[in-house]
Amino acid sequence: MKRAVVLLSGGLDSTTTLATAIAEGYETYALSFEYGQRHKIEIGAARRIARALGAKEHRVAKIDMRIFGGSALTGDVDVPKKRPAKEIAEGIPVTYVPARNTIFLSYALALAETIGARDIFIGANAIDYSGYPDCRPEFIAAFETLANLATKAGVEGARFRIHAPLIKLSKAEIIRKALELDVDLALTHSCYDPTPDGVACGECDSCLLRLKGFREAALEDPVRYANK
Amino acid sequence: MKRAVVLLSGGLDSTTTLATAIAEGYETYALSFEYGQRHKIEIGAARRIARALGAKEHRVAKIDMRIFGGSALTGDVDVPKKRPAKEIAEGIPVTYVPARNTIFLSYALALAETIGARDIFIGANAIDYSGYPDCRPEFIAAFETLANLATKAGVEGARFRIHAPLIKLSKAEIIRKALELDVDLALTHSCYDPTPDGVACGECDSCLLRLKGFREAALEDPVRYANK
Repeated sequence: MKRAVVLLSGGLDSTTTLATAIAEGYETYALSFEYGQRHKIEIGAARRIARALGAKEHRVAKIDMRIFGGSALTGDVDVPKKRPAKEIAEGIPVTYVPARNTIFLSYALALAETIGARDIFIGANAIDYSGYPDCRPEFIAAFETLANLATKAGVEGARFRIHAPLIKLSKAEIIRKALELDVDLALTHSCYDPTPDGVACGECDSCLLRLKGFREAALEDPVRYANK
Repeated sequence: MKRAVVLLSGGLDSTTTLATAIAEGYETYALSFEYGQRHKIEIGAARRIARALGAKEHRVAKIDMRIFGGSALTGDVDVPKKRPAKEIAEGIPVTYVPARNTIFLSYALALAETIGARDIFIGANAIDYSGYPDCRPEFIAAFETLANLATKAGVEGARFRIHAPLIKLSKAEIIRKALELDVDLALTHSCYDPTPDGVACGECDSCLLRLKGFREAALEDPVRYANK
């Protein structure tokens, strides 16, 4: 059975990506990161999702990105609330973490080479992506080129492939795809700034994009929100 | 003053690279990693070197690469000893750590973007390099391409540059360059498998390449060896 490493944050996109890899017949190794987030709720969500969907393994790598500072997701800046959709779609937000997907994919590559996987899945999305540069197709393609030059396996003739199956889907399309794949979206956690008991805020960019996606898909989000 | 991030392991090559960046007029931010090495001696060497050479800052990022296993440098396999020079020069050794330089450069990129640096220095070397794929010029070039696609700064028009000033030098040439730059090579630590009190083994690939370099440069290595 061919193996794949799947980056899993516990959100809607990475969960749908894991379901996609499993549906394509891969034995999946889910990989999550603890990186000085304000909350560890998403690690718990990732664990439950990996189990529920049937990942072969779930590994959590601790990385201390706080030494780099500079982002709302690493604790230095407030998470913006209630931004209009137009504003979310434009520019790079304060929730941008420098080189985050580069670091995540580097770890995924190391794990892939170690376990003999040649396929890496990431839930990057270039449509409703809040302007993160490391969610664009050209970034994914550049990482794939790098992966094949960086590794012993690449030098020896293997071909690593970076799969970003959601990259051109809208949030509504991702939600529909998740439901087609029988994913229980109640397990997923998207909020950047949940309450202490893990309830989504309903006002950060991530909650707003998710809620907009459910509205556009004419579906009800099974997740509970503090405000919406 | 223009800033640069310099990857610093405390070995001969990265120390000479730091001295090169300083000589070129950069304000340098040295970056070292604790990554489940058998020994933390090299972190101590890196600290002393950063101070002695006049780096502006020295940061140490803890990363747990043991979860990837698979290499003598991460503790799973014995470090090979007394290999002939020809054998060292051929093939990829067990000291290869999957995606190590990719992970290191990703962190360097995150730090560079955070502090407003556009230049990253790495002591990669493609001549006496023991066959590591992620020390080749094409790997460095691919990472530079990636860096400019991966980052907010890149999207906004900045140009990141990955400098590998030693990439085409022999070990003897690196040693001569270090001495031209007044580097005290007694501070450097190259051994993969030192004694508990930090004395170099004299028999691992790294010691053998270093000693060969000193012989070819007709110079005496100021570092003490358990065997040579």
